[in-house]
Amino acid sequence: MSNYVVTISREYGSGGRIIGKNLASRLGISFYDKEMLNLLAEESGFSKAIIEEWTEKKTSSFLYELYTATQEKPISDQIFLAKTKIVQDLAQKESCVIVGNCADYTLQDMDRCLRVFIYASLEERAYRAEKEYKIQARDVAGFIKQTDKKRGSYYSHYTMNKWGDRHNYDISVDSGLGIDVVTDMLVSLVHAMYERE
Amino acid sequence: MSNYVVTISREYGSGGRIIGKNLASRLGISFYDKEMLNLLAEESGFSKAIIEEWTEKKTSSFLYELYTATQEKPISDQIFLAKTKIVQDLAQKESCVIVGNCADYTLQDMDRCLRVFIYASLEERAYRAEKEYKIQARDVAGFIKQTDKKRGSYYSHYTMNKWGDRHNYDISVDSGLGIDVVTDMLVSLVHAMYERE
Repeated sequence: MSNYVVTISREYGSGGRIIGKNLASRLGISFYDKEMLNLLAEESGFSKAIIEEWTEKKTSSFLYELYTATQEKPISDQIFLAKTKIVQDLAQKESCVIVGNCADYTLQDMDRCLRVFIYASLEERAYRAEKEYKIQARDVAGFIKQTDKKRGSYYSHYTMNKWGDRHNYDISVDSGLGIDVVTDMLVSLVHAMYERE
Repeated sequence: MSNYVVTISREYGSGGRIIGKNLASRLGISFYDKEMLNLLAEESGFSKAIIEEWTEKKTSSFLYELYTATQEKPISDQIFLAKTKIVQDLAQKESCVIVGNCADYTLQDMDRCLRVFIYASLEERAYRAEKEYKIQARDVAGFIKQTDKKRGSYYSHYTMNKWGDRHNYDISVDSGLGIDVVTDMLVSLVHAMYERE
């Protein structure tokens, strides 16, 4: 199998998604982000609304636990598992860039997988959130921290690892170096690792 | 000023020093590691033995604190400050790669400074420690962990930051990708950032 996968985990507002998108385009391979994975998950029979509700969200309330104790598996777990299966199938089928969804963890035993984490200073992320993502929150910094907290908590819940810990990734990079600089660097790295053979 | 500096922090046995040495050689700039900094610190009047004793070691024992309470500054602090001054002078004078000595912290306000952290799996580090560094410890993994603990503790003592925390670095990379692959990547990154202008 000559497929390879680049997984991108990212702090909110770091520009990790756009780096992943540009990287895939430069490498001429497919790109899957949260929206694309949600779309694919609909094929498993879940409604769009349910998937969106439970993406990057884990079961946490006691009442919810109580309510679902009679069910086979919590909906959040079912959706996570469906998406994990999608990530595994994509990795089997084609070279691609996958953003989010704990793909680094799902594909941890895949040899030809480069696991990337993108972060940035809070200032840069707040700027990007306001100017590019058009976030209207009163407290943008608070919104960013809250979003990362949810991502971290979701990641820990399903992987038992700490989100952002360097040991889960091959490379962690501050997008403050420049979105294009980081993309160029990753293109060269992928060429060196998987496309010289 | 068109100087730039690459600082390399590294887990013990990760090959960070050799990556730094190769990087400097490829970029045609100077290379300063612990030994070179020690040598330069001798010019401040400290003996070689004293410098070696207090490098990557911080004042921690209560008795020592008591003993040195009458002195102007603990020897460890004096040596750290002397080496910090050397790092600042080098950064002013020339482009270079500097390994260790909290140089990332010392030069945190320098615009043209790329701060790199190199790590690796414990297995790879143990292999390198035995085969390349010829470490004879009975418990190599224990020796590695102990050495990193000392580095982390020294770093935290002088910088108040957490050693290895991604926010202290522009890029953190697992040398398991390959010493040459990582070196090539850093050469390209430096070219993109500082040598295209």
